[in-house]
Amino acid sequence: MIILGIDPGLSLTGWGVVEAFSRDKINPLQYDCIKTMPSIPLIQRLQTINTELQSVIDKYKPEVAAIEELFFLKVTKSIAAVGQTRGAIILTASLNKIPLFEYNPKSVKTALTGYGSADKYQMQHIVKTFLRLKEIPKPDDAADALAIAVCHVSTINWNAKNNNNDASCHS
Amino acid sequence: MIILGIDPGLSLTGWGVVEAFSRDKINPLQYDCIKTMPSIPLIQRLQTINTELQSVIDKYKPEVAAIEELFFLKVTKSIAAVGQTRGAIILTASLNKIPLFEYNPKSVKTALTGYGSADKYQMQHIVKTFLRLKEIPKPDDAADALAIAVCHVSTINWNAKNNNNDASCHS
Repeated sequence: MIILGIDPGLSLTGWGVVEAFSRDKINPLQYDCIKTMPSIPLIQRLQTINTELQSVIDKYKPEVAAIEELFFLKVTKSIAAVGQTRGAIILTASLNKIPLFEYNPKSVKTALTGYGSADKYQMQHIVKTFLRLKEIPKPDDAADALAIAVCHVSTINWNAKNNNNDASCHS
Repeated sequence: MIILGIDPGLSLTGWGVVEAFSRDKINPLQYDCIKTMPSIPLIQRLQTINTELQSVIDKYKPEVAAIEELFFLKVTKSIAAVGQTRGAIILTASLNKIPLFEYNPKSVKTALTGYGSADKYQMQHIVKTFLRLKEIPKPDDAADALAIAVCHVSTINWNAKNNNNDASCHS
């Protein structure tokens, strides 16, 4: 099963594609970030995120996508930026008929480390180890996206014939 | 020129299509609201907004869209909901290659009434009068969407050969 993990952000949207054969055997296929400049109008920035994400979808043909839940930041401007980016990303997955699952940061940490308060370094280190990468994925947003994809793998019922997901699907 | 005005909201997205022949001659073509139920997952709600807006675009083929700017609400949950809806709507316009213009509520009020603090009733009444409607458009979100479309008309330079817009275009 090919899974696309996404860490949404208007300036930097991290993405990571993994291929999972079981809960413990997950191969990283590719990861990177989509960057958009604050000097560019919002509409063009969302368009860029959609175009680049579409290229990733066309190339790797993920069967499922996993995205970080919107958590309530203190700065309303940040919520607005992440919110609008998320809306565009969710619609991109939806238009490609890719089922999308949402995970909150605590669930992702618990799934990977067994500990809901794991710090950024612990998370990056475990992503590197779990995916047998030579280095910690950079930038951080790409590592976060891979972590979300790995988190999704941990929720799949591998004993079911059709690899049903235990979590509720929001497709 | 056919203009699509949009008042974004996750539960209710108002839309209004007008055809403008000059600054003072604007015919309403249609207006309505897209409703999504809070009991439905966010992803399906954004998909519904996209599908219904796409039908409006396919039917009326607007050359331009105008949307209300995101203003910073006090409730972060509201910003998140409106933000995600806006992101999906902006991407819908972008994928249809429709130039999109943003107007803040004060600009819309000033354009229609000459007074930036006009109340909801004044705005609805002037939309009805301006568009020669028999009744005040309902629900309020549809009236707001028509007001945004009319506001856009007021920014068009009708003397220019290609009806250039004085405002900056975010297409």
